[in-house]
Amino acid sequence: MPILNIQLLDGRSDEMKKELIQKVSVVTADTLKIPLEHVQVILHEVSRKHWARGGVTYSEKQ
Amino acid sequence: MPILNIQLLDGRSDEMKKELIQKVSVVTADTLKIPLEHVQVILHEVSRKHWARGGVTYSEKQ
Amino acid sequence: MPILNIQLLDGRSDEMKKELIQKVSVVTADTLKIPLEHVQVILHEVSRKHWARGGVTYSEKQ
Amino acid sequence: MPILNIQLLDGRSDEMKKELIQKVSVVTADTLKIPLEHVQVILHEVSRKHWARGGVTYSEKQ
Amino acid sequence: MPILNIQLLDGRSDEMKKELIQKVSVVTADTLKIPLEHVQVILHEVSRKHWARGGVTYSEKQ
Amino acid sequence: MPILNIQLLDGRSDEMKKELIQKVSVVTADTLKIPLEHVQVILHEVSRKHWARGGVTYSEKQ
Repeated sequence: MPILNIQLLDGRSDEMKKELIQKVSVVTADTLKIPLEHVQVILHEVSRKHWARGGVTYSEKQ
Repeated sequence: MPILNIQLLDGRSDEMKKELIQKVSVVTADTLKIPLEHVQVILHEVSRKHWARGGVTYSEKQ
Repeated sequence: MPILNIQLLDGRSDEMKKELIQKVSVVTADTLKIPLEHVQVILHEVSRKHWARGGVTYSEKQ
Repeated sequence: MPILNIQLLDGRSDEMKKELIQKVSVVTADTLKIPLEHVQVILHEVSRKHWARGGVTYSEKQ
Repeated sequence: MPILNIQLLDGRSDEMKKELIQKVSVVTADTLKIPLEHVQVILHEVSRKHWARGGVTYSEKQ
Repeated sequence: MPILNIQLLDGRSDEMKKELIQKVSVVTADTLKIPLEHVQVILHEVSRKHWARGGVTYSEKQ
């Protein structure tokens, strides 16, 4: 019953997000030897204005 | 001063969310024997496209 | 399938924590009109040294 | 490599949020004696309808 | 720069946790087409006494 | 009423953690022009075995 909360910058396509969710779920179930159905994933898209490294947002870095 | 971060699928009415916040706050204060004013609740609505069980999003399950 | 992550100061008895988990789960299921089995709760006990209000930890306030 | 997840009520200006991110990053790096580049900050704006103290949302308090 | 916060029940071996971290990192980098070095993973081990489904902790279910 | 959840590698002294909490609280209150008493900080110490960048834990990097 692991829960993966994944934060990533927004802007990815629906296809890529769906693939990410599907693949991390499978690899988690396989590694922990648990049923795939026990794995939950929640994606959190973060705006470039709200994520910073070194005090500078990704919006400013662009 | 407990803090409850509640993740739920989006789509609930404002009335239902307000009732949820109110009731979990009261039951938390009563159980921990603390003033109601010490309890904080933060709701996080998650899109069906961003929440998955078993590698499949709730958006796809529909 | 709501998930409640609850942060509270450590030091509560196992009985009180179990009661908290049980009661917030029931009130959440009832309010959202979903099966109790869909509700998950995760408790996070925080040390008084690691939780602060107004820049002062609860450990110092004591 | 500390990560600061900051929850705040929405409605602040972009300027104020940028300043907040910049200043907490600098003070974190200085205090921990690490390079500024190692500090990450993620802002989470929360709607007044979704944040409550004492069972009452900030939306209702207004 | 995605960050994966993974909550799982405690009790897994160091080997299994290391493998989980390594594999979800690789699959995330591959899927998002980003350098592996940009992926961060943080594991949160949760006690069976602090994780519940349906109002009953995993400690009680055993 | 902002809440700062700060994840950092464990091993810092109590003094340094207290200073970090105090200083980020003050800078947050000053920047947002709110009373210091409204700022909460919660520290989360993470084991080097449970935090990874690029698929390798900080425990292994040492």
